[in-house]
Amino acid sequence: MEPINLLQKHAEFSKLWHPHQIAVVDDMQVLLAKLKGSFVWHAHENEDELFHVLKGTLYMQFRDRTVTISPGEIIVVPKGVEHNPMTQNDEEVHVLLFEKCTTSHTGNVAHKMTQTNYPKI
Amino acid sequence: MEPINLLQKHAEFSKLWHPHQIAVVDDMQVLLAKLKGSFVWHAHENEDELFHVLKGTLYMQFRDRTVTISPGEIIVVPKGVEHNPMTQNDEEVHVLLFEKCTTSHTGNVAHKMTQTNYPKI
Repeated sequence: MEPINLLQKHAEFSKLWHPHQIAVVDDMQVLLAKLKGSFVWHAHENEDELFHVLKGTLYMQFRDRTVTISPGEIIVVPKGVEHNPMTQNDEEVHVLLFEKCTTSHTGNVAHKMTQTNYPKI
Repeated sequence: MEPINLLQKHAEFSKLWHPHQIAVVDDMQVLLAKLKGSFVWHAHENEDELFHVLKGTLYMQFRDRTVTISPGEIIVVPKGVEHNPMTQNDEEVHVLLFEKCTTSHTGNVAHKMTQTNYPKI
């Protein structure tokens, strides 16, 4: 029951595309991640996924369009919807994610960028 | 699948201590609330509750101590733990909450401040 400072937590790691767990709320987890470039097309069949942009501009690619998410904005990607987060202009983007503890990193896709362990910080 | 701007959403209501729902993630909801003064001592027997301070300083009273939460910080109140959020110096504090859709406003306590309907904005 201590406050968790998002900026301080973000300063504790540098690896891109590797979520770090900062809290658990019932069966969901709060993750921080640093993103740069393009990720992997994937969907989570059974779980929604919330992205909250803290720094930089996130471009969430869907198959039919790309949605721009600025700092102070959130987006919820519904279960089953293919998506691929990316950044532009070599910008490092910091996000907070809310999702089930069971949500796998790249959903239904196995990829070299797939992380199976999220460090607790 | 559109971005949700937290500042814009916060500007859409003014009533204090009345959460407004801005998103749902699986069986959990994202709420915004404006707080000023002291709330009500209560606990949620079966649900954790996350507070993310967006503006101002939140003081989370527990029975044995008070925790200060600043902008950019979060705190998770575990299920079953009595708490009473408050603000100081007549400051209006803006928070984002993340909790189960089933979580009742004042948990195990009925109070004139209890809200049973959270408007969707």
